Amino acid sequence: MIFQRHPLLISMFSKLQRFVQPIRSMSTITIPNSKQPAHRLTMIPGPIEFSDDVLDAMSTPSQAHTSPDFIPVFQEVLQNTRKLFKSSNPTSQPIVISASGSLGWDIVGANFLNRGEKTLVFSTGFFSDRLADALSYYTETDVDVVKAPLGESVPLSEVEKALSAKSYDVVTITHVDTSSAVISDVEAIAKKIRSIQPEALVVVDAVCSAGVEDIQFDNWGLDYVLTASQKAVGVPAGLSISIASERAVKKAFAKKRPTSYYANLQKWIPIMQAYEHGKGAYYATPPIQLIHAYRVSLREILEQGLDNRFAKHAETSNKFKDNLESLGLKLVAKREFGANGLTAVYFPKSINGPDLLKKISEKGVTLSTGIYAGIATEYFRVGHMGVSAVGKDRHDVDIVFRLIKETLEELEK
Amino acid sequence: MIFQRHPLLISMFSKLQRFVQPIRSMSTITIPNSKQPAHRLTMIPGPIEFSDDVLDAMSTPSQAHTSPDFIPVFQEVLQNTRKLFKSSNPTSQPIVISASGSLGWDIVGANFLNRGEKTLVFSTGFFSDRLADALSYYTETDVDVVKAPLGESVPLSEVEKALSAKSYDVVTITHVDTSSAVISDVEAIAKKIRSIQPEALVVVDAVCSAGVEDIQFDNWGLDYVLTASQKAVGVPAGLSISIASERAVKKAFAKKRPTSYYANLQKWIPIMQAYEHGKGAYYATPPIQLIHAYRVSLREILEQGLDNRFAKHAETSNKFKDNLESLGLKLVAKREFGANGLTAVYFPKSINGPDLLKKISEKGVTLSTGIYAGIATEYFRVGHMGVSAVGKDRHDVDIVFRLIKETLEELEK
Repeated sequence: MIFQRHPLLISMFSKLQRFVQPIRSMSTITIPNSKQPAHRLTMIPGPIEFSDDVLDAMSTPSQAHTSPDFIPVFQEVLQNTRKLFKSSNPTSQPIVISASGSLGWDIVGANFLNRGEKTLVFSTGFFSDRLADALSYYTETDVDVVKAPLGESVPLSEVEKALSAKSYDVVTITHVDTSSAVISDVEAIAKKIRSIQPEALVVVDAVCSAGVEDIQFDNWGLDYVLTASQKAVGVPAGLSISIASERAVKKAFAKKRPTSYYANLQKWIPIMQAYEHGKGAYYATPPIQLIHAYRVSLREILEQGLDNRFAKHAETSNKFKDNLESLGLKLVAKREFGANGLTAVYFPKSINGPDLLKKISEKGVTLSTGIYAGIATEYFRVGHMGVSAVGKDRHDVDIVFRLIKETLEELEK
Repeated sequence: MIFQRHPLLISMFSKLQRFVQPIRSMSTITIPNSKQPAHRLTMIPGPIEFSDDVLDAMSTPSQAHTSPDFIPVFQEVLQNTRKLFKSSNPTSQPIVISASGSLGWDIVGANFLNRGEKTLVFSTGFFSDRLADALSYYTETDVDVVKAPLGESVPLSEVEKALSAKSYDVVTITHVDTSSAVISDVEAIAKKIRSIQPEALVVVDAVCSAGVEDIQFDNWGLDYVLTASQKAVGVPAGLSISIASERAVKKAFAKKRPTSYYANLQKWIPIMQAYEHGKGAYYATPPIQLIHAYRVSLREILEQGLDNRFAKHAETSNKFKDNLESLGLKLVAKREFGANGLTAVYFPKSINGPDLLKKISEKGVTLSTGIYAGIATEYFRVGHMGVSAVGKDRHDVDIVFRLIKETLEELEK
C-alpha cells in the first residue's frame, strides 16, 4: 500500500499534532474546550461522543415522572421529535420509550402486524436481516427479504419486481445499515411502495440515520420510523425513539389481542399524547435523566438547523472517505451508496486487522469491528456522527484519520 | 383529627426547621452536604432520590459497549447483582437490560410460558393485576388471580387452596405491590409453591422491594426475580434488572419459537455470560451511563451491608408510620403487612386530598397519588427508599412528615 503524502494532509497532521500528542502517554484524548475528563474517544457507529451539556443533563437530580418539573421537558422532547423527522402533521405520533433501539422492531411486530400477515424487508446487511427475523416472531410466517448486493442498496428495479409479485402488509427499509454503511434512498423506495402497494405500511429503520441523514416523514409518506438515542441523535443509549403515522396508529388500535406488554402502542400512545399536551400519565416509568439529555440534544440539533447539520455531516464524511481512499484503502459501501454517519473500511491485506484496532485503541480511540455476514473479519467501521462530526472545536475525525494512517505505517514496517 | 404534640415530635421539628425553611421561599429543598442543586424532593415510591456519586456516574463520557473501559464495569454489575439477590449459585443468571421494570413481565411471558400454559398470580394490587394481564398476552388464555383482601397479603391458606386445585406452569408473587404498599411473605409463599407444585416456576416481582426488603434467591428456591433501577436500587429509571434460576433458563432455551425480540433470553443470556466473564458481546446496545450509575449504587449498597440496609429501612419506615398514626391518620396496608420502602396513607375525610399533595408540592416535595382500584382517590403514597431513608445527613423522611403535619393543619383551619 502506498501512502500519498500530499501537502494538504501534512499540514493537517501538524495542526493536529497537539491533540494527538497526549494519546501516546495516557491512552486517552483531551477534548479542547470541554469539561469532560480526558477519555478514550468513542468513534464507533454508536454510542457516539456526547456534548458537555448533554452529559450534564444526565445527572439531573431526581424528578417524579408526573412532577411539574418533568412534564414540560417530556412535552418539549415529543414536540421536537416531530421536528427531527420533519413531521408537522398533527395526526403523526412521536413515541419515546426506555429501551435500546431494537425495541422499535418489536413495536412494528406487536402493533402493525398480525399472525400470518406478510412482510417484505429490503436488506442492506446484518441489521436489516435481524429486523426480518424479529418480525417473523410476530407474523409466525416467513418474512420475504430482498438482499442488496454488498456495498449497494436494493436497486429500484428489484424493489418494483418484489412489490409487483406479492401483496404485503408491511414493507421495511433500513435507511442506513450499520453493518455495511450503505444508505438506501428512502424517498424513492417509499414512493415505489406507495405507488404499487398503497395499503402496505412503510417502515423505516433509521437507527443509524436520524439526525445525520434527511428524513421527511410527511412528504415521503412514511408510516413508522424508528431510531435510538446513542446514534446521531447524540444521547447516551437507553431511548427508543420513533414516530408513527395516523394509519399505523389505526392499525395498532385495531389489533384485538396485544402480543407484548412493553411494546403495546394501545397503551403507550395515550401516555405520549398526555405528555405532549402537558399532562403526566403512567404506563411504565420513563427514564427521566435520559429524556432531559435528549431535550438538550434536540435543542442543539434544531438550533444548528437540520439541513445544515446534514450538510456538515456529509462534508465531514466525504473528506474522511476521500482521505481513506487517498491511502489506497477500499471502502465497503460504494461511494454513491455511502452513508454520512459512518464509514466501513477494508483492512489492507498486508496487515492483521485486529492489530490495527488494538493499536488504535491503545492510542486512545475506539473503532468498531466488522459485522456483515461473510466479510465480518475483513473490515472495520468508524462512526462520525454528532459532536465528533459537527461540533465546534472538535477534531475527532481528523484524529482518527491521523491514527489510522500512522498505525498502518507502523504495522507495515 | 387531633394532632398529638408530644415532646419528641416538637424537638424533632425544631431540629428540622433549618431544612424546611428554604422550601417556603423557593419550592425546592437544599440537601445538606450534597453537590446536587436545590430541587423538589422526590419522595414517591420510585424514582427515588439519588446519591451524588450515582448522579456523577450518569455523566460518564461516552464509551463503546465493547471497550475495555466498559466491560469490567458491566462485569462487576452482573456479579454484584447476584449479591443483591443473595445468590451464590453459579447456575443462576443475572440479566440487566435497557428498559423500564415492566420489561421483566415480558421476559416472563416470552421465555417461561408457552401458549396455553397456566399461570397463577397472587395479587396484592394494581401491579399484580397488570402482571397477570401481561402474562395473558403470551399464554393467550386466562391467568388465574387470587386477590388479597385490601391492606393484606394473600393468606397462606388461600395460597394452599389455589395450588391444590389446579396445576400451574408459572406462579407469581408480587413482593411489594406499589399500589397498596403491602408486602407478601415471599419465603413462606414460595415454600408452599415448591412443596405443592415443585414443577411450577416461582416468579417474584421485586420492583418495589429489591434493595429494601430481604430476598434470598437461592435459599427460598426462586426461579425469576425482577426489579427496576429507579426504586430501592437507587439509580435513575432505565434498567430492567433480574435474575433467573437454572431451570428458568432451561425453560427459556427449550422454547422453539421466540415471541419477542427484545425480551428473548435465548439471545440475552449469552451476552450476560460474556460480560460476566470479562468479554464484550452484542445483542442490543446496553445503556452505558446507567450501568455505570448502577455500579456505583451497588457498591454503596453492598458496602453498607444488605442486612444493615434492610434494618435501617425498616427503622425509618416504622418511625414514619408511627408518626403518621400518631396524627390519627390511617394506613392502607395493615401494619403487619406494611412494606418498608413506602407508605400508603388515607387522606383524612376532613380535607380535599389533591389539595394536600398540591400544597406539599408547592413546598418542594413530590408525593404520589393513589392507584389501587376503587380507592385510588382516597389515599396518597410516600416513598422512603435509598438515600432518603438510609443516607447519612439526609432528613428527607422527617421533612416529609413535618410537611404533611403542617399542611394538614393549614387545610383543616
